[in-house]
Formats: sequence, structure tokens, C-alpha cells
Amino acid sequence: MVECVPNFSEGRNVATVDSLERAIASVPGTVVLHRTSDVDHNRSVITFAGQAASVAESAFRAAAAAQQLIDLRSHSGVHPRVGALDVLPFVPLEDSTLEDCIELTHRTGERIWRELGIPVYFYEAAARRPDRCKLEDVRRGQFEELRKLAMVDESKMPDVGGPGLHPSAGAVIAGARKFLIAFNINLRTEDLDVAKEFARRIRASNGGLPAVKALGLALSSRHLVQVSMNLTDFEQTGLDTVFETVARLAAERGVEIEESELIGLLPRQAIEQAAAGFLKLGIFETQRVVENRLETLRMRRA
Amino acid sequence: MVECVPNFSEGRNVATVDSLERAIASVPGTVVLHRTSDVDHNRSVITFAGQAASVAESAFRAAAAAQQLIDLRSHSGVHPRVGALDVLPFVPLEDSTLEDCIELTHRTGERIWRELGIPVYFYEAAARRPDRCKLEDVRRGQFEELRKLAMVDESKMPDVGGPGLHPSAGAVIAGARKFLIAFNINLRTEDLDVAKEFARRIRASNGGLPAVKALGLALSSRHLVQVSMNLTDFEQTGLDTVFETVARLAAERGVEIEESELIGLLPRQAIEQAAAGFLKLGIFETQRVVENRLETLRMRRA
Repeated sequence: MVECVPNFSEGRNVATVDSLERAIASVPGTVVLHRTSDVDHNRSVITFAGQAASVAESAFRAAAAAQQLIDLRSHSGVHPRVGALDVLPFVPLEDSTLEDCIELTHRTGERIWRELGIPVYFYEAAARRPDRCKLEDVRRGQFEELRKLAMVDESKMPDVGGPGLHPSAGAVIAGARKFLIAFNINLRTEDLDVAKEFARRIRASNGGLPAVKALGLALSSRHLVQVSMNLTDFEQTGLDTVFETVARLAAERGVEIEESELIGLLPRQAIEQAAAGFLKLGIFETQRVVENRLETLRMRRA
Repeated sequence: MVECVPNFSEGRNVATVDSLERAIASVPGTVVLHRTSDVDHNRSVITFAGQAASVAESAFRAAAAAQQLIDLRSHSGVHPRVGALDVLPFVPLEDSTLEDCIELTHRTGERIWRELGIPVYFYEAAARRPDRCKLEDVRRGQFEELRKLAMVDESKMPDVGGPGLHPSAGAVIAGARKFLIAFNINLRTEDLDVAKEFARRIRASNGGLPAVKALGLALSSRHLVQVSMNLTDFEQTGLDTVFETVARLAAERGVEIEESELIGLLPRQAIEQAAAGFLKLGIFETQRVVENRLETLRMRRA
């Protein structure tokens, strides 16, 4: 089993996101696990899974549908993006490995260029150059800057295809990575500087919390600002630590937390570890959950 | 499947608790799910499960072993108790119902009296008198008082057996109930009045948190005091609400929370709901957990 979590540059037009989901689900063996859209980000995330061959076909159809339905030249949203199908991560589940996902990423990326003419960048474990490991480095400058630079600057050219980007669909940033938790905390203020400051203080690259990426974004439609985060290794920094750190910063600033959001899915261990952290239960054994204990006993018998 | 969660009046002598566990596990089809002991409570909880017939036999053997190994006349501990095998709750799991558990409780209780000569009280859903629904009402006065009252006061006599209690094994309080979460918060102080005050302020019977029972106890061996709680309906009041309420009281009093303890097991929904509550995620869909989602899809296919 492989999971795939494409991010599309459309979060307002439900009919478009429905079409994208249908394209993914049209492949036998692929199951859509979750879908979420945000108006201010103008972005949707569709989580799906299946055997490698099904997932590769669904990912390709997702790229083709996004190319038909989304024109980046008229797209606006607060989340950085470079493509109609913007980010295409493959994640090992259960029996599959990161190596399987790297192979799948390269194969799918090459087909996207060959059959659709959309250039592809490879990131994280699938990166072919060390300066492309981090997604945020690859997408720096976004669609508007990158389409110019990718014509002339060798360091900005796609890994497959190009030079330059596709005029309306931009580029796909495809990668292989471990499970990641996308988690946002929305603050009851419209002062974007507050969210940006909190993001700066918690992100790992500034010496904040290990394995945490963070951006400060405005949610104008809701009159809130958002600390938008990726937890790339919840065993290093869990949801409880992230939440309590932001809550402390918010208390210092006299700002209230309105709510949090989870984008897509998260592993069982992450939710159990978060609850145990908040509750001061210490190390939490997953077998303390009665359903998990019974499942283990059943598997042992089978 | 039925779960059974006997509480024994021995938490210091590991060999004794080992023997109790062996007696339970000696029945084919019974699986021990968890075991926990506390030195200050001088009490152990062994959680086990199986088909009704296996569970009934294990419960009977537990009562017999406790009678052999524990003498209440020389027992001391901070947790209230009336018997060697003190409390014997049966809990429906998966396919079984509370009615099944009531029948099981009465059958096992009658056998304990008939074959072991230990009187039995029935509580919660298995109560035969309305004044015995609540466990705390049944055990009021504990072993020392109750053994006298149960001789002479009709309202205190056992439901099966008696009058009076067994001289060394006291009485068994057997019942049928829904899943309950036993959860303790330990405070970094030796002032027992603080724990008693917090317990008084949060318990449902004093107008505190719905479906919460609470006692203040001293953990002398650890130089702490404890708010010892039962959450009888975590959908009404979850772990997050209980913890945050005690944390607020502690902050007001300038007392720190040292740690929490979970006794036995808890349902998956309780841990997910607690995490979501702390994280301000709103209503949490269990299908947002990737393992739960995959399990559901597999069951749908099977």
C-alpha cells in the first residue's frame, strides 16, 4: 500500500475539486481516504491510497485533470504554489518502503512530462539534487517568479522537462517522504504579523521545534490568521508540544486560539502520543487502548 | 466478548498478585489484557476478557484465589474496600450487551456465595435494590464498619449470603456497567486537604463535572496526593475536560500536577476525543486516523 497526498491549486470551486476527486477515484484499486479544501489558501488536499500501480495511475490522472481545470495565471491564494497539481507526495504505508515510493515518484514524474508536457521537480527522498530536498526551497519564488527563472537559471530548471514551466499548469513538485501531519492553528486576530512571528519562532529552520515547518498566513474570509504547520516527524515533536508552544506564545501576546485544523489524516500513534502528552501520562503504550489490545490478540491467533 | 475488571485488596506483594493473575488466566479462552498495582492504595486491578462462560469461570477463580491469599483483617490502604476480591464489574465489549453482563453478574455472585461462602452485593446495572446502584453507597463504612452493620441492619445486608460478611474475605461487590475510565491525577504536594477539595469540587454528586466520581487520597510513598477518579461516561465528560479542570484548580492553588495515571484500559474514542479536545480540533472523526480508515475499508471489502 502506498498513500498519495496531492495538493491542488483550487479550494473555492467545489465542482472542480469534485472532478479532481473523480479522476483519482476512477482507477480500480484506488480508494480516496480524505479530502479537504480551504477558501483562503485556495487549495485542496485529496488523500488516497492503493497498490503502487493504482496509485501511480491515479496520480497521473490527477495531474491531467488539474491541467484541464486549473489555470495558475488567474489563481490567487495565501499558500505558496507553483503548479495546478502543485505538490505530489508519495508515502509508504504498511508493507511498502520509501524506496518503493522514490521509484514511483520518478516514474510518475517522467510520465507527467512525457504525456502532459508539464515539467516536474523532485523533492525530499526523491530529490536528484541536494538543494531540492526541502519543498520550501524548490517552490521559492512561486509560479510567478519560477516560470521566468526556470527558463534561464540552470539551478531553477525542472528535473524533468523544461526549461521553463507549463504556461497554465506550472510545474508539479513530486516527492517521496514519510508520513507528515499537516496541522494549522487559527488565532483570533487579523494581525498577520502575529502569525508570522509565531511561525518564525517555532520553525525548525530558525532553531525552534525539531521537525516542524511553519508559515504565518491570513484567513481573510474568517477574519483570523493562521500558523500553518507541517510536522515531519511527530515522534520528535508531537501535536501536544506544537499546540502548547503556540498556546504559550499566544498567552504572552494576549491572543486567543480560535481552533485548530488537521489537513488529511494522521497516524494512530500521533493522536495517542498527543493525548498522553497533554494528560501527563508519560510514555503511552498503544496496548492500553482496548480496541488495539483486542486487535493484537486476534492477529496473534490468526 | 465480555470484559471483567476485578479490583483486589493487595497492591504490595507481587507474588500474591501474580497468583491472582494466574488463577484468572488458567481458564481457556480468557485473556488478561492489563494489570496494575498501587502501593499506597494497596490494591490491584486486573483487566481480562473472553466469551461469557470463560469470563465467569475466571471471575469465580479470582474470588477463590483472593479468599486464599488476602486477609482483610490485616489489610491497610488509602482506597476504600470491603473485600479481598473487592469489586467485580462485568462490561459488555463488541457483540455483548449490558443485559448479558447483568445475568453473568448474578450467576457468578450466586456461585461465589454458594461455593466459597463469601456474601455478595450487586451494584450499578446489576443492583437489586435502588439504593445499591452506586458503588460508593454500597461500600460506605468499608470492611470494618460493614461487617458489623451487615449482621444487624437489614439495609446493609448482602444481596446474596449473609447476614454479616466473610471474616477474612469480606464481601464481593459485583456489578454490570458500561466501560469506565479510571484516571488519577497526582499533585506535587503532601497536603491531603488539597486533593480532597479538588475531588469535592469536580465530582458529579456535588454538582461538579457530569459522570465524574472523585476521591482525594494520600500517596505517602511518593510524597504526593492524588485526585482519584472514575469517568463513567467519557462522552459526557472526557479526559481533557477533567484534566483541564484540575489543572485550573491547581494553578489557582499554586500546586503543580506531577503526572497522571490511567488504570487499566480505555476505549479508542476516549483517547481520540481527549486529544481533539486539547487541540481544539472540534468534533473528531475517528476516520481521520489512517489505521482506522484502512481498517474500515478492509471490513467493507470482507
